[in-house]
Amino acid sequence: MCEANIYLAHKNSEGEEPELFLESADQIVPDGEDSWRLTSIFGEQKILRGRVRSMNLVEHRIVFESL
Amino acid sequence: MCEANIYLAHKNSEGEEPELFLESADQIVPDGEDSWRLTSIFGEQKILRGRVRSMNLVEHRIVFESL
Repeated sequence: MCEANIYLAHKNSEGEEPELFLESADQIVPDGEDSWRLTSIFGEQKILRGRVRSMNLVEHRIVFESL
Repeated sequence: MCEANIYLAHKNSEGEEPELFLESADQIVPDGEDSWRLTSIFGEQKILRGRVRSMNLVEHRIVFESL
């Protein structure tokens, strides 16, 4: 399965490890300005506010940055 | 491998099939406002201008929308 883990980094926290926000995300859809509706392969839904910092799909890793 | 195909839809083209922009993308990184640097698993790099419309990682499908 090609889901990804979603991490959330706090702005101006370049050196810190981003926190895990949602495991095994399948769908990521914009939900307004700088807001995203995430759905995991288990059906869990969460809203994330922030911007994409990086996606590494082969590593199953997507990092957002809070505003 | 958990790469995804990147599609580009033109604004106000809800009914049309988005065009394939880059096959087998691994990395997707912001490159300025509404601009993205995409890198495929083959090392191909492309710049895309637009916004995310939807991501379906299990289906290996990410759709951007041009501005």
